[in-house]
Amino acid sequence: MSEILKALNWRYATQVFDQNKKVSENDLNELLETMRLSPSSFGLQPWKFIVVENKELRKEIREVAFNQPKVTDASHLIVLCSKTDITEEYIKQYIKDTAETRNISIDSLKGFEDMMINFRKLHNNESIKDWAKKQTYIALGILLQTAAIKGIDAGPMEGFDPNGVDEILNLKKEDLTSTVLCAIGYRSKEDKTSNYKKVRHSISKAIETRK
Amino acid sequence: MSEILKALNWRYATQVFDQNKKVSENDLNELLETMRLSPSSFGLQPWKFIVVENKELRKEIREVAFNQPKVTDASHLIVLCSKTDITEEYIKQYIKDTAETRNISIDSLKGFEDMMINFRKLHNNESIKDWAKKQTYIALGILLQTAAIKGIDAGPMEGFDPNGVDEILNLKKEDLTSTVLCAIGYRSKEDKTSNYKKVRHSISKAIETRK
Repeated sequence: MSEILKALNWRYATQVFDQNKKVSENDLNELLETMRLSPSSFGLQPWKFIVVENKELRKEIREVAFNQPKVTDASHLIVLCSKTDITEEYIKQYIKDTAETRNISIDSLKGFEDMMINFRKLHNNESIKDWAKKQTYIALGILLQTAAIKGIDAGPMEGFDPNGVDEILNLKKEDLTSTVLCAIGYRSKEDKTSNYKKVRHSISKAIETRK
Repeated sequence: MSEILKALNWRYATQVFDQNKKVSENDLNELLETMRLSPSSFGLQPWKFIVVENKELRKEIREVAFNQPKVTDASHLIVLCSKTDITEEYIKQYIKDTAETRNISIDSLKGFEDMMINFRKLHNNESIKDWAKKQTYIALGILLQTAAIKGIDAGPMEGFDPNGVDEILNLKKEDLTSTVLCAIGYRSKEDKTSNYKKVRHSISKAIETRK
């Protein structure tokens, strides 16, 4: 079995973390760097990833996250946030960044800019938020796979009040909303769920080939 | 730089594929297996992945996908579909699968079943679809990262008419909808975009630490 498949079979949604084991700064930086490099539609990266180290903030977040212990007990808590809108200003800044990175003119990117502005116009305020959240889930997939390959445990969470977390982290003023949380660290020996056999659709249920 | 970071820096949203280079069956199976193993909320796997080999179907899909050549020209086309609903029947089947896989009683999973049924009730018909799509984007992230690590190129696409693809693949009767497409194969030397420098938010823009 390949290293990637071994890693994905090894991982599980960790519930109880070892409170004494910390993810090293090097490893944390690699996890974050893979998230930063995550693909997104148009490359628009409608996200920000917040590592919450502050213990008080983690306690507050736990209170709006069904009191899940991993929020405070795991080595690190990452809050994956998505943009609440894609404004013309944001698109123009992205075009400017692209021109600078590639050493080309902003004018040469006019078609690309127009395409993104039209794309935004096709969405209403709610659906652009959903779109941004979906992109953020790509980064979540990358984070979970990278962690697994590196032998780091992860406990992703949708069970929390986004408005609560947004307030605690003061995200509104940055046009961000908390989309999914992920605790990272190392599984505790006391986590019985680590022995549970993984349940997945059979190959024939999950995959179909149209010949 | 680690192998994973090298891979993510090497990959790009491939536009032009080499029509003569095919992904081997072994490699394809590994890509699909990583998708099958993808994490999802509650482990509910609200998805199905369809590999379209049929040339006629790929032509038809291209017609509803802004005529993007990669739909027909890449080695393979994967249609990532998500469930259009999470019915009580679906949840009960998942509980049954879990009980069988873990050799435990269905009764012992009653709390987990109730949790999922309540979760479904908190959603309306539209928001459960969005939820399922978001889960499917986790699998997209896993696919794109696995492909990159294996040196396989990928061209993900949101630019298509989901209703059109749903009709072509007759997805409605399976309670599925096409969520995102991904062409896989090998980049053509003619793809100028392969030389474009990757544009990403700076570390300070993408990542924040709350100390």
